[in-house]
Amino acid sequence: MPLRLDSAQSDFEQRFSDLLGAKRESSKDVNDTVASIISDVRARGDVAVAELTNRFDRASVTPSTLAFSADEIAEAAARVPGHVRAALQTAHDRIKAHHEKQKPQDHIYTDDLGVTLGSRWTAVDAVGIYVPGGLASYPSSVLMNAVPAHVAGVSRIAMVVPTPNGEINPAILAAAQIAGITEIYRIGGAQAVAALAYGTQAIARVDKVTGPGNAYVAAAKRQVFGQVGIDMIAGPSEVLVIADDSANPAWVAADLIAQAEHGAGAQSILVTTDAKLADAVGAEVERQLALLPKQTIAREGWEEFGAIITVASLDQAADLANRIASEHVEIATDDPQALVPKIRHAGAIFLGHHTPEAIGDYVGGSNHVLPTARSARFASGLGVLDFMKRTSLLGCTPSSLSALAEPAVTIAGVEDLDGHGRSISIRLNR
Amino acid sequence: MPLRLDSAQSDFEQRFSDLLGAKRESSKDVNDTVASIISDVRARGDVAVAELTNRFDRASVTPSTLAFSADEIAEAAARVPGHVRAALQTAHDRIKAHHEKQKPQDHIYTDDLGVTLGSRWTAVDAVGIYVPGGLASYPSSVLMNAVPAHVAGVSRIAMVVPTPNGEINPAILAAAQIAGITEIYRIGGAQAVAALAYGTQAIARVDKVTGPGNAYVAAAKRQVFGQVGIDMIAGPSEVLVIADDSANPAWVAADLIAQAEHGAGAQSILVTTDAKLADAVGAEVERQLALLPKQTIAREGWEEFGAIITVASLDQAADLANRIASEHVEIATDDPQALVPKIRHAGAIFLGHHTPEAIGDYVGGSNHVLPTARSARFASGLGVLDFMKRTSLLGCTPSSLSALAEPAVTIAGVEDLDGHGRSISIRLNR
Repeated sequence: MPLRLDSAQSDFEQRFSDLLGAKRESSKDVNDTVASIISDVRARGDVAVAELTNRFDRASVTPSTLAFSADEIAEAAARVPGHVRAALQTAHDRIKAHHEKQKPQDHIYTDDLGVTLGSRWTAVDAVGIYVPGGLASYPSSVLMNAVPAHVAGVSRIAMVVPTPNGEINPAILAAAQIAGITEIYRIGGAQAVAALAYGTQAIARVDKVTGPGNAYVAAAKRQVFGQVGIDMIAGPSEVLVIADDSANPAWVAADLIAQAEHGAGAQSILVTTDAKLADAVGAEVERQLALLPKQTIAREGWEEFGAIITVASLDQAADLANRIASEHVEIATDDPQALVPKIRHAGAIFLGHHTPEAIGDYVGGSNHVLPTARSARFASGLGVLDFMKRTSLLGCTPSSLSALAEPAVTIAGVEDLDGHGRSISIRLNR
Repeated sequence: MPLRLDSAQSDFEQRFSDLLGAKRESSKDVNDTVASIISDVRARGDVAVAELTNRFDRASVTPSTLAFSADEIAEAAARVPGHVRAALQTAHDRIKAHHEKQKPQDHIYTDDLGVTLGSRWTAVDAVGIYVPGGLASYPSSVLMNAVPAHVAGVSRIAMVVPTPNGEINPAILAAAQIAGITEIYRIGGAQAVAALAYGTQAIARVDKVTGPGNAYVAAAKRQVFGQVGIDMIAGPSEVLVIADDSANPAWVAADLIAQAEHGAGAQSILVTTDAKLADAVGAEVERQLALLPKQTIAREGWEEFGAIITVASLDQAADLANRIASEHVEIATDDPQALVPKIRHAGAIFLGHHTPEAIGDYVGGSNHVLPTARSARFASGLGVLDFMKRTSLLGCTPSSLSALAEPAVTIAGVEDLDGHGRSISIRLNR
C-alpha cells in the first residue's frame, strides 16, 4: 500500500517531512570508478572508449566503428514503421514551434551617462547529447535534447547512445534522423561523457553535455562540469496530482501509474481535498495495475514511493506542492488557472482534467527534460537558453568614464587593487 | 618575460595550443577532504561548523556566535568612510538599474490546436552568497551577487564570509548593508557551503549557493550541486585585449597589469595587429609594474601566464579570441562595434579605448561574476536569470487532447510505456 496521510493528523508534519526526506535512489558511491574511467579516456582515447564499451555494454566495437555510419542510420531508420515516424515528426514539429518562442532577445542600450550596456546571446558551438540505451531507451528524449539545441543555433550536435549487446531501438535513430543529427556514437556511461568532454581521436570534444543517464553518467557529468557545461544531474522522475472532487478517479489513477511505471525510484503523489476521491483513486490504481504489462515495476514504485494525501483546501495543496517542488504537477480541477500562481516550485504544470502528464512527454511541445528530486526549487526544464550564453557589453565614452572614475577608483582602493584604479585614472586627462 | 607569439611563425598553431592548454591552477585533489567536511557538518551541524571555522580560520566562534549581530554589522559599516560608502551606493544603484532590464517575461499562449503553452518565471526562495575573506576580500562581489538576487525577487539572502584571525574588511559589511542583507555568518570554506546546502540548527538551508571561493569552496559547490543549485565553478580570472595601432600602449599595459595583480593564475593576453604596439606595451608593462604596490604578484602573473600575440588582421584576432573564450575581452580600437559580432565566446566585451575592464568590475552596471577558464564557450555571467527558474505550463482541451492522442500513444508504445499511453486513451470518449 502507498502511504496515506491526512493533513488533519497530529503527526502530519513529521510524516510529510519524512516523505520529503526519503531517499529514492541508492547512493552507491561511483565517484572513484568514474574518475578512473575519465582519466583512462583522457590518456588512451578511443582505445579506452572501445574497451570500456565492450566490457560494460557487452558490445564489440573498435575505435573505427564507434560512430554509426550514414548507411547504418538510414537502414535502422527505414525499419521504423511509417506511423511511428509520423508520430515522431509531429512531436518534432510541435517541440520546435514551442521552443522557437524561447529564443532570447539581445538588449543593448545607452544610459543617461552615455554608458553603453547590453546583453548579447550566442549559441554554444558544439553540444553532446546523452541518450540512454537499454531499459529506458526513449526516442522522445532525442527530440527533447536536440530540438532546443538546433533552435538555439548550435552548429554541431554529437549524440551518444549505448547499445547493450550491440542492440539499439531503431526509433532512436529515426528520431535522430528527424532531428537532423548525423554524428552518432554507439557508446554510453562515464566513458561516453569523458569522450565528449575531452575529445578523442575519433570524437571531437564538445562544449556542453546534456541528457539523462544512470549513476555513472550523473557522476561523470558532475566531474567534467567546468571542462564542459552540463544541463543538470537527473534524478528519479515524479508526479504530483492535485485534485478536488471534480476529478475523475480513473484518470488520476492512470496518471499516477504512468509515473510509477518508470521504476527506478519514480514517485507518484496525489494531494486531494476530497477523501472520497482519495479512496476511489486508491482502488482504481489497484484495478488498473492488474491490467498493465509493466505492473510489477509500477506496483513496486507505487507501494514503495507513492502517497495519497488529503488536505483541507486547495491552498494547502499548493503549500505542499511548493515543499515537494515536483518535476510534474497536474492540477485536476475545473479551474486550474486559479491555482497556478500559488504553485511557485514545479518543473512543469499540467492544466486541468484533459492534460495528462504523458501528453507533455511527447507531443505537447514543451520539454520533458525537467528538474527532479526537488530541484525545481532552483532549476528549470531544458530549453533554448541551455544551449546559449549571454555576453555582457560595456562601453564608456571619455565623459562617462570620467563621471564614473571616482567611485570606481575608491572601491579599487578598498579592495587593495591599485592596478585596477590606475587603469581607470591613467585614462583621465588631468 | 611573458610569452611572445606571432601568427606568422611556422610553429604558431602548436604554441598557441600550448598556451590554451596550460594549467593555471594547481589541481590539488581536495575532494576527499571536502566530502568529509560536508558529512561532518550534516552530522553535527553548528558544532562542526564552529570547530572547522576555528581550525581553518584561526577564529574563536561558537554555535551561538556564527551570525553577525545587527549591532556588529552596523558598527563595522559605520567605520567605513563616507566616500567609500557613497562609491558602494553608486555601484549598487547602477548594478540594480542594469539588472532590472534582465528580468524575463512570462509567455503564455494558445496554439492553433487549442493547446495552452507557456513559460512562467519565479524567483528562487532562498539564496546563499559566498563572499571570500582574507586576501581577496571584495565588497564589490557582495553587490554583484546580492543585487541580481534581489532584483529577481529572492526573499531570503544568507551571506557567508570567512574572517581569518577574526578579522573582516568592514567595507564588506557596508556593502551588505547597502544591498539589504541582514543574515550574515562569519564562516567560509567547505563547511560554509555545507551549512548553506543542508542547513544546521542556526542556519536554515538555502536553495542555491553562488559566489567564488578557493579550491575547497569550488569542490564543495561541485559536491552539493543537485542538493542546491550553484552558479559556476570559478577559476582564475583573465583578460584578453585586442588592439590595433589606434590603441594607447600605456592604457593597454595598465589593463594587463590590473588583471595580473589578482595573482592566483590570473592571465593577461594582448592580441594586436601592430608589432610596434606589441613592443610598446611590453615596455610600458615593465615601466608601470615598477610603480605598483602589488608589483611582485602582478609581475609573477604577467611573466608566468601573460602573452603578447601579433596577428595579421582583426579578423584573425577575433578567431583567437573565440578559441581563448576569455572572461573579459577588451576591444581597443576606434570602431569596436565592428568586431563585436565576430567574437562569439566571451564573458564580457569592453568597447573601445575608454572602457578599461576595471570599470566593469565596479560601477559599469554589468556583473563582474563571469565565466572563467574558457567556460564562456558555454556559460554566462551571473545575472537575474540565475536566481529564477522557469516552469512550463501545458493545457489541453478535450479536442486538442483528442487531436494529439494518436501520435502520443504511438510514441509511448515504441518506448514500452503502456501506462503512459493509457493515461491518454482513457480520457478519450471512444
